Amino acid sequence: MQACGVIVEYNPFHNGHDYHLHKAKQTAGADCIIAVMSGNFLQRGEPAIVDKFSRAKMAIDQGTDIVIELPYSSTVQHSDLFAEGAITLLNELQVSSVCFGSELGTIAPFLHTYHSYKNNETLFYQTLKEQLSLGVSYPKASEYAYQSINIDFNETLDLTKPNNILGFSYIKAIKSINPIIQPFTIKRKQSDYHDKHLTTPYASATSIRHQLLNEAIISQQIQETMPERTADRLKNYHETAGTWHHWEDYFSLLQYRVLTMDTQGLAEIHGVDEGLENRLIKTAKNATSFQNWMDNLKSKRYTQTRLQRMFTHLLTNTSKKTMNQLQQQPFPYIRLLGLSEQGRAYLNHTKKERTVPIFTQFSKPDSLMMEVEERVSNAYYAILAPHIRKNMRKQEFEPPYRG
Amino acid sequence: MQACGVIVEYNPFHNGHDYHLHKAKQTAGADCIIAVMSGNFLQRGEPAIVDKFSRAKMAIDQGTDIVIELPYSSTVQHSDLFAEGAITLLNELQVSSVCFGSELGTIAPFLHTYHSYKNNETLFYQTLKEQLSLGVSYPKASEYAYQSINIDFNETLDLTKPNNILGFSYIKAIKSINPIIQPFTIKRKQSDYHDKHLTTPYASATSIRHQLLNEAIISQQIQETMPERTADRLKNYHETAGTWHHWEDYFSLLQYRVLTMDTQGLAEIHGVDEGLENRLIKTAKNATSFQNWMDNLKSKRYTQTRLQRMFTHLLTNTSKKTMNQLQQQPFPYIRLLGLSEQGRAYLNHTKKERTVPIFTQFSKPDSLMMEVEERVSNAYYAILAPHIRKNMRKQEFEPPYRG
Repeated sequence: MQACGVIVEYNPFHNGHDYHLHKAKQTAGADCIIAVMSGNFLQRGEPAIVDKFSRAKMAIDQGTDIVIELPYSSTVQHSDLFAEGAITLLNELQVSSVCFGSELGTIAPFLHTYHSYKNNETLFYQTLKEQLSLGVSYPKASEYAYQSINIDFNETLDLTKPNNILGFSYIKAIKSINPIIQPFTIKRKQSDYHDKHLTTPYASATSIRHQLLNEAIISQQIQETMPERTADRLKNYHETAGTWHHWEDYFSLLQYRVLTMDTQGLAEIHGVDEGLENRLIKTAKNATSFQNWMDNLKSKRYTQTRLQRMFTHLLTNTSKKTMNQLQQQPFPYIRLLGLSEQGRAYLNHTKKERTVPIFTQFSKPDSLMMEVEERVSNAYYAILAPHIRKNMRKQEFEPPYRG
Repeated sequence: MQACGVIVEYNPFHNGHDYHLHKAKQTAGADCIIAVMSGNFLQRGEPAIVDKFSRAKMAIDQGTDIVIELPYSSTVQHSDLFAEGAITLLNELQVSSVCFGSELGTIAPFLHTYHSYKNNETLFYQTLKEQLSLGVSYPKASEYAYQSINIDFNETLDLTKPNNILGFSYIKAIKSINPIIQPFTIKRKQSDYHDKHLTTPYASATSIRHQLLNEAIISQQIQETMPERTADRLKNYHETAGTWHHWEDYFSLLQYRVLTMDTQGLAEIHGVDEGLENRLIKTAKNATSFQNWMDNLKSKRYTQTRLQRMFTHLLTNTSKKTMNQLQQQPFPYIRLLGLSEQGRAYLNHTKKERTVPIFTQFSKPDSLMMEVEERVSNAYYAILAPHIRKNMRKQEFEPPYRG
């Protein structure tokens, strides 16, 4: 049996994802699709609009065979760490190929850029480091670094575009973890990541979230951007939880936390670097909304994405020390969120080749990673009503969804 | 000029307090009454129903000349530490006498009990320590300790009653800090501390709070238990804040905090002792309200009052280390919350005898104590709407109310 891996957030699942899923399976000639999915918080440092359990069900509904969770310590990170975590897990599950979406739809420019980068890695990191030390933001600094090794975004691969950055990180991770894995890419059907305008039937997840947050119900227009069962899952979650998850809902918790901490405590939180602790306390006092706080914090050095990640670590109370400990050890387990019949057959078939245990159910945390995952879930559900969040939290210990 | 000191919480101010205030001034033959008042959290580990600024105004309205704040590190503590802090401040302000309310209304039993206790102090603390180490609660252990030195509550002073415990602690503090201060006591007009039934015109603060929390408006019956201006102050606060302050309102913040901490972090919080950190995390998961959580935490060893104090330190994120630092240094300043014309004259008159500066307004925290006071206020107001809490927090830096 052959598996193709995909790396997803499904925030929420939509027609573009559905297209990618089936096209990937077909192109790879795979028996089975394995998705590594971000949990309740996402790579760019945002709460997912609905929880990971609902999003895993959406994936299984539409033909994904196995959904596993990318641990928190790999998810809320810049693209290289994110990719490294995801490819490590897919490799552990013996995938033959990895397929990602991109604007270009061809793998050659990625591989070409990779070889240029690999031949000039020392110079690349030297420039990157220099730029960062000058107070330039990470995205901008890496743009300069690519320029320094003569990679021209106009001619090859535009590495300022989010999907290209991610794709390129996947390539680097594959080459470093297991070059036997075949990377390929499919041209995205949906519009740009940043596009807030909803188009049907293919809309960006950003535009769908934008619309969802503005509407109490799931409108006909939103329904046209996603499979019917996905819309039902969304509806169900909203009915149960009473809300979508959105940064603004976490504002009071975040502000409360910052305004009851001293600068020393703040500086221990992962992502609170370079004196950000003072700026955080100062801006917290006058903030009246998350966006308002963000606007007062943002600068050339601190991009919105970087600040969002920092807020995620603050919300989940994740320290530098904890993050370090997690990153220095191999994953102690793989968390299975959902699987199809085919997925079960695949897991049985590849059982002997795995070194990391697959957990389907937990009794209580017996590793630091599981402790952190539980705290992260607790923080995610904290905005819901007491009885509801109590039930939601319990899912962390339940077996995976079987499609 | 002569001043008489009173130690108060005014939660809220009522006819019994009004009676005590005027009777104390008259009996002491004092020119001026100085009240040391608990801030936003109270001795028994509860949020005050309205904030300290409103409560200080109530006190000045009714004839108190000076209202100063008892710092957090002295307030949310057992009666001996509470009394020590209050008497230290009153002594600094050169009071000639201290007057407290009691069931008995005569000072002799307090002084008699004090002498018996003083003559057998070693045995007293030996028994207390023994009992505590056996897992007996603090109130119960001190009852045994008094028995061990032949103090019979039926014959002398019932030291199981909250007001007598406090009164006795004031006597001990006066004797140790400055025995020249004259203690005296006035028989309480209002019913018992624990009485939840509202009686007019003299009702206990407990019964008034109970009624306030059950009613959206301030009923005629409640108005009859307090001066008219006090009722107006209450009404004003409720209209501005949109709520009374009550433990239940803090449940979500507390649960969020505990469910995003590890046991090590919890054990660093002041009041989280003897393995309480494990019990806290375990009970937090299933709690659906503050009372429900409390019911599952309470035991012979952990009384409700002790647990409430612990919850206050958790809410305000006050560590053992911080509390230790605060208690090992003299008060860096005295915080003035309100004063009358007469109060101002008294402060001018006694200026030269003071060693601790009186602060009337702050720019930004320049001492650990002020940092803590600010965090405590931030936690107190955290349950209000964003714009409201922002304005409320600013009062921390404003000059005192002048009556």
